[in-house]
Amino acid sequence: MAETNKTALLVGAGDAIGAAVARRFATGGYTVCIARRDAAKSSALVEELTGAGGQVHALSVDARRETEVQELCERVEREFGPIEVCLFNAGSNVRKELHETSEKLFFKAWELACFAGFLVGREATRHMLRHGRGTMLFTGATASVRGSSGFAAFASAKFGLRAVAQAMARELGPKNIHVAHLLIDAGVDSPAIHQRMKAATGIEASAIPPDTLTRTSSIAEAYWFLHQQSRDGWSHELDLRPSVEKW
Amino acid sequence: MAETNKTALLVGAGDAIGAAVARRFATGGYTVCIARRDAAKSSALVEELTGAGGQVHALSVDARRETEVQELCERVEREFGPIEVCLFNAGSNVRKELHETSEKLFFKAWELACFAGFLVGREATRHMLRHGRGTMLFTGATASVRGSSGFAAFASAKFGLRAVAQAMARELGPKNIHVAHLLIDAGVDSPAIHQRMKAATGIEASAIPPDTLTRTSSIAEAYWFLHQQSRDGWSHELDLRPSVEKW
Amino acid sequence: MAETNKTALLVGAGDAIGAAVARRFATGGYTVCIARRDAAKSSALVEELTGAGGQVHALSVDARRETEVQELCERVEREFGPIEVCLFNAGSNVRKELHETSEKLFFKAWELACFAGFLVGREATRHMLRHGRGTMLFTGATASVRGSSGFAAFASAKFGLRAVAQAMARELGPKNIHVAHLLIDAGVDSPAIHQRMKAATGIEASAIPPDTLTRTSSIAEAYWFLHQQSRDGWSHELDLRPSVEKW
Amino acid sequence: MAETNKTALLVGAGDAIGAAVARRFATGGYTVCIARRDAAKSSALVEELTGAGGQVHALSVDARRETEVQELCERVEREFGPIEVCLFNAGSNVRKELHETSEKLFFKAWELACFAGFLVGREATRHMLRHGRGTMLFTGATASVRGSSGFAAFASAKFGLRAVAQAMARELGPKNIHVAHLLIDAGVDSPAIHQRMKAATGIEASAIPPDTLTRTSSIAEAYWFLHQQSRDGWSHELDLRPSVEKW
Repeated sequence: MAETNKTALLVGAGDAIGAAVARRFATGGYTVCIARRDAAKSSALVEELTGAGGQVHALSVDARRETEVQELCERVEREFGPIEVCLFNAGSNVRKELHETSEKLFFKAWELACFAGFLVGREATRHMLRHGRGTMLFTGATASVRGSSGFAAFASAKFGLRAVAQAMARELGPKNIHVAHLLIDAGVDSPAIHQRMKAATGIEASAIPPDTLTRTSSIAEAYWFLHQQSRDGWSHELDLRPSVEKW
Repeated sequence: MAETNKTALLVGAGDAIGAAVARRFATGGYTVCIARRDAAKSSALVEELTGAGGQVHALSVDARRETEVQELCERVEREFGPIEVCLFNAGSNVRKELHETSEKLFFKAWELACFAGFLVGREATRHMLRHGRGTMLFTGATASVRGSSGFAAFASAKFGLRAVAQAMARELGPKNIHVAHLLIDAGVDSPAIHQRMKAATGIEASAIPPDTLTRTSSIAEAYWFLHQQSRDGWSHELDLRPSVEKW
Repeated sequence: MAETNKTALLVGAGDAIGAAVARRFATGGYTVCIARRDAAKSSALVEELTGAGGQVHALSVDARRETEVQELCERVEREFGPIEVCLFNAGSNVRKELHETSEKLFFKAWELACFAGFLVGREATRHMLRHGRGTMLFTGATASVRGSSGFAAFASAKFGLRAVAQAMARELGPKNIHVAHLLIDAGVDSPAIHQRMKAATGIEASAIPPDTLTRTSSIAEAYWFLHQQSRDGWSHELDLRPSVEKW
Repeated sequence: MAETNKTALLVGAGDAIGAAVARRFATGGYTVCIARRDAAKSSALVEELTGAGGQVHALSVDARRETEVQELCERVEREFGPIEVCLFNAGSNVRKELHETSEKLFFKAWELACFAGFLVGREATRHMLRHGRGTMLFTGATASVRGSSGFAAFASAKFGLRAVAQAMARELGPKNIHVAHLLIDAGVDSPAIHQRMKAATGIEASAIPPDTLTRTSSIAEAYWFLHQQSRDGWSHELDLRPSVEKW
């Protein structure tokens, strides 16, 4: 029981990165709480990981709502155990010319990728501060460090999230909370990107050259590594891309 | 008339940086439109600059409202002349521990420093695109590139604004619109900072060592320089600090 | 035999980071070649690790001499096995006011921290290219990304080494050679720093608060992690510092 | 005499950037000393500027030799007046695959672009410190901040020079010496690049689209602006590129 008492809370955990991180932490002995808009979408994953002996639960949350995030964290602490590690992984890439970018699109991109990250980071670390320790992980992207043409909305949100991660790291590090930001400078190997590539180029998933997209399991290993670091040597930022990527 | 037909629109133009930029562009032969929450607050400045032969107007705007920003730009174009240069200068520094940072404070910081910047940048450049040229200027700060402890909200907003400026520069540069971002890595010599310093340290404005705060006129010169650059050699980002500053 | 055929070559491997990395890779099943100015200085370490069942060898090299570096790599390949991972770890921190920095000091700092890194990187990857794979690791520091007052010579060398690492990563990544640069933004827990702290502040090693210096074993784990990454998700740069560090 | 007593020393001043900066500072009332390997190559420029009423002198120097640099600075101070501004502009772009990069090429790139910059910066500011003021300018490039494939040698040298500039800025700023680094992220409009483009693509200089290369006069204006800044607001780094440049 002692071991499974350690809880990992994954927010914005979809079928790609979220599922892989859930698998990694379940394997590592953590009780994993998968939180997403619609928990039902993770039922197959929960079944799979539970079948393999894991302690995995799916919970519904709209991470853009303060009270929902607060209730999520409180429920996890109450029902499953102290939040030892939390991943914020929400945000959806959007490309749009500046003069096609509506007020609404700009707001939505920020609300999901940045504002929700602030709420989740603040609430999860509130509990970690009580425990005297914890790891807070954020998923970044190329757009976190580069405002490319057509990405005013998305880059603005991801830059903003990176600032939150940095400010949290500097403020909470001395209080034994490790805050890290993973810069995924690549396409992530997932059904979503397969569909987008097929729509854009006609290339089937089976025809994508191996190792040209970053596998979600590699991302999960990076998060696992960050969480394992001892407090005398913490990394705050880490990039990740395939060997063949141009950068 | 030809000369005074060139119009500079300054949004978020308060009594410090905004006034100095107004002075510089009025002296340079521009019709200057000062836009701020309450235009009346600029009446003394308008009077001063008009008395000196300048063409200066103050307009009220809430730069966080899309329709107000659109109407502002349209009115300036209609009444005063084509917007040749636009400065977005809004945003107010706020320091707050993460766990004291309310949802509202985080939103407000972003809405004023980042969202309004997106709106102003998008609307002003819409007109510039029609004219086939223009300069869009953004005011940045130390917090634009560094998420310090206690600055999750402000840095997040300023990082986000920097992303907007970068994305705009890459998208609009080839269309002959110069987008630049000034990193003011210093305290700005202004009544506001004098009051803050007095409150924090008891030091009177008159006792502040000379040249330890950046003068607003120096900031205005930097903007003027950026606007004068020919299109074969544009700067996108520029830092600014006093010689004695630690950085 | 198959396992011990994998060889790790550590250049500029002193008693701190070098020894810890040697220990980590020996434990991981690698034949470890420790290369330093005077191999004899590693005899105790070789004895210790050999006693624990490791395959460890110490070799003398002046990494600033092209032919010595070439001979080292050839000898390792010939006598111990294909170089699968190589760490370049030389370079010694030096603080000196600009106008006290002699031509000689500037040259020496560069020759050891940058030029030798270029030579070792070029020669080790020459063999890796033949094998069709490999990992090249470089040790960076705060001075790799920040030219602080008093560090013109050291920062210049470390900036230069970082450029070598970046150029190598972009050129050799597509050829399946992983090049990574570890930014150690901290004091490293070692006898050398204990002595320096005692000299500067009078504080005994035993009185240094725990976890305020980064342990060499934590650095070794970071290198091990980088080397384990699969080629769909490689990190190029990683920072490392104690939780309490100001940055 | 008072006015022409202000001296600008331009080191590594060729026919492109160097000539334009000479022209700008001569026009601005400075006595200009052009220092390059072979002073005779600047005789036409000296004649032109002298004919236009300027005070311009060409001097031979090998900037990689400490004593030559020392003698140059002393001679300028003695014969022409106090060095008020110094530009270091040497360094020649070289592209070479890593495994074609010889020890010699790597050293030469560094010696010219970085080591000479250190020597010139140190010696020129030695005199400026005596005068209690001055401006030290360095020419940077894309390779100053990005280690691209094929640029291990050149980027290493330019990264190294940037570190020197940063360390000098932080150390000498409080002593009233302004150190700035201009990032020219573009091709420079010059006979050299015209020849290279013709060789590589067959395009004649006359067929190069206007404003796609940065004019040397635009670079000179940037240096002039930096030198004019008042000490309450100094810029350390500034990028420069044509409006159409991809970046």
